[in-house]
Amino acid sequence: MSEGLLAAHTAEGQEAVALLDRTRQAVEPELRRAVASLPGSMRRIASYHLGWEHADGGPAAGQGGKAIRPGLVLAAARALGGQPATAVKAAAAVELIHNFTLLHDDVIDRDRTRRHRPTAWTVFGDADAILAGDAMQALALRVLADDPHPAAPAAAARLAACVVELCEGQHTDTALEERGCDEVNLEECLAMAEAKTGALLGCACALGALYAGADRDEVEAMDAFGREAGLAFQLIDDVIGIWGDPGRTGKPAGADLLARKKSLPVVAALTSGTAAGSELAALYADLQADDVERAAEAVDRAGGRDWAQAHAADRMARAVQQLSRAVPDPEQAGGLLALAEFVTRRTY
Amino acid sequence: MSEGLLAAHTAEGQEAVALLDRTRQAVEPELRRAVASLPGSMRRIASYHLGWEHADGGPAAGQGGKAIRPGLVLAAARALGGQPATAVKAAAAVELIHNFTLLHDDVIDRDRTRRHRPTAWTVFGDADAILAGDAMQALALRVLADDPHPAAPAAAARLAACVVELCEGQHTDTALEERGCDEVNLEECLAMAEAKTGALLGCACALGALYAGADRDEVEAMDAFGREAGLAFQLIDDVIGIWGDPGRTGKPAGADLLARKKSLPVVAALTSGTAAGSELAALYADLQADDVERAAEAVDRAGGRDWAQAHAADRMARAVQQLSRAVPDPEQAGGLLALAEFVTRRTY
Repeated sequence: MSEGLLAAHTAEGQEAVALLDRTRQAVEPELRRAVASLPGSMRRIASYHLGWEHADGGPAAGQGGKAIRPGLVLAAARALGGQPATAVKAAAAVELIHNFTLLHDDVIDRDRTRRHRPTAWTVFGDADAILAGDAMQALALRVLADDPHPAAPAAAARLAACVVELCEGQHTDTALEERGCDEVNLEECLAMAEAKTGALLGCACALGALYAGADRDEVEAMDAFGREAGLAFQLIDDVIGIWGDPGRTGKPAGADLLARKKSLPVVAALTSGTAAGSELAALYADLQADDVERAAEAVDRAGGRDWAQAHAADRMARAVQQLSRAVPDPEQAGGLLALAEFVTRRTY
Repeated sequence: MSEGLLAAHTAEGQEAVALLDRTRQAVEPELRRAVASLPGSMRRIASYHLGWEHADGGPAAGQGGKAIRPGLVLAAARALGGQPATAVKAAAAVELIHNFTLLHDDVIDRDRTRRHRPTAWTVFGDADAILAGDAMQALALRVLADDPHPAAPAAAARLAACVVELCEGQHTDTALEERGCDEVNLEECLAMAEAKTGALLGCACALGALYAGADRDEVEAMDAFGREAGLAFQLIDDVIGIWGDPGRTGKPAGADLLARKKSLPVVAALTSGTAAGSELAALYADLQADDVERAAEAVDRAGGRDWAQAHAADRMARAVQQLSRAVPDPEQAGGLLALAEFVTRRTY
């Protein structure tokens, strides 16, 4: 990277970090108010999951996630000429939906660690993690139902439709994981990633547009922007899941490989028709901790890593194209672009 | 029962049966349309759970439940001078919420039979039953978000708040089941039953009132009517869970005892301070199939059965009182009364 590009990239990163900081400051009071309205047990589990409390109920420092989705809601509202402050409830609703899906996905995937802490089901049990997720979904829709903004009903309809898509995406993900290595194809996995990750990022952008009073075409273009950026984000996240630094990810090195996850780079490798791809399939049949490094190398040699990075760049280009449909002025689109670049260029 | 009373009771029962038939005819098309909008897997699991499809996807006769909650929505709308036809989406939304909670409760309680069929989680697995429940919750809120009726936003807010209460109720139920026989009290169990069962019946009545344009006091009185009737219903349901006819309940005789459930008659017996109560506690410590009959007798001798029936009657009296607050004309309140009587006087 040239020094000029690096400087621009750093500036963009700083813009995104500042935007996310502002988002958290604006949205967290609304989130805390909503969660405080939950009855005792549901509130306690939600507060633990969000990083606000320890398991014993004592206050915690609050590693509550990066607030990317609420950041997209507010940035989209601003990009389309709206007032981000009026979209704070919508941003909180999207973040609640995101966290409800995390609670349930962790139960379903039996994931034991989230944001460097034990997942809620490992602390409170499956039943309470399921119920707290259910309550958080309801809370999200209640926040929107209580919002007097004229866009709130359309936002609620869109967010509810998005939840259905997220559920189908998580179902497909689980189903794909149960299939053999010779029974997966890349198209299907990309469609799954769009439903599981892209849909909510798209919905966040669409809600911001709705709150800015955007027209139908603009709302759809913003949804498409978020979906494409979301897919780029997932591809990079999958790369990090294999080659990421454990100190940053909070997970052991090659965690996704050890769990024999059929992440996108892995499926690209498995379906590459290369010798390295066959080697990976053989390793995946019975992977031990010792094999993780060899598996990572096989994904790399089969072209899985390069493909994921190239395809992420391709998706980002499509995202930018969609964004320019909704927001032709690059200056106005700055915040959204910075966020999209930020989440897809995380160092690992 | 005198012959005159019996005739009135039968007529009331017939009125309720006819009302529930009309409800199913009015609401099922809306329900089917909503479920048909779900993506493939979610649709299939929901259709199985609702009794519309067999596990292999073939059409089934459709034992989809008694439609009591949608019946309450429509009857409440009519009782307050509204047009039941305009409240069909609200009725469908309430039924979807009810079924979402059944899907999740069956996973949590590990119940294997529902409406004489294997529960969804035993057929499709925990993950898909959780996800289909999530999708059905979202679908309910989407049906309301898409409803142009002016009461829809207030109904959505109320239904979402009700879901939170249902979650807390199910949590408390699970927590009570894990406690020892000497660590439960009746007040707590009644509060749990109100949250778990009463809340949604109250919400159904309140939604009907909202759709009829009722004022705040009327809406609250209708909610209270549904809650009290719901508690009466739960008490009778608990009696049936111990002494019900397996041919009618679809569950083995004394199923709730064999599962060592702390249902309301059981808790009344355990906390009765009687010798029979102590006998029951001793039996519950390690109950075998052979002990079920003795346990049922102990509940009876400890006064659990009488208490449950008397308390159900008391709750019904309170329900009728609340109803007369909202609907002073007994003629107009007829449908609601018939429904309430129907669900609390089921033969067993």
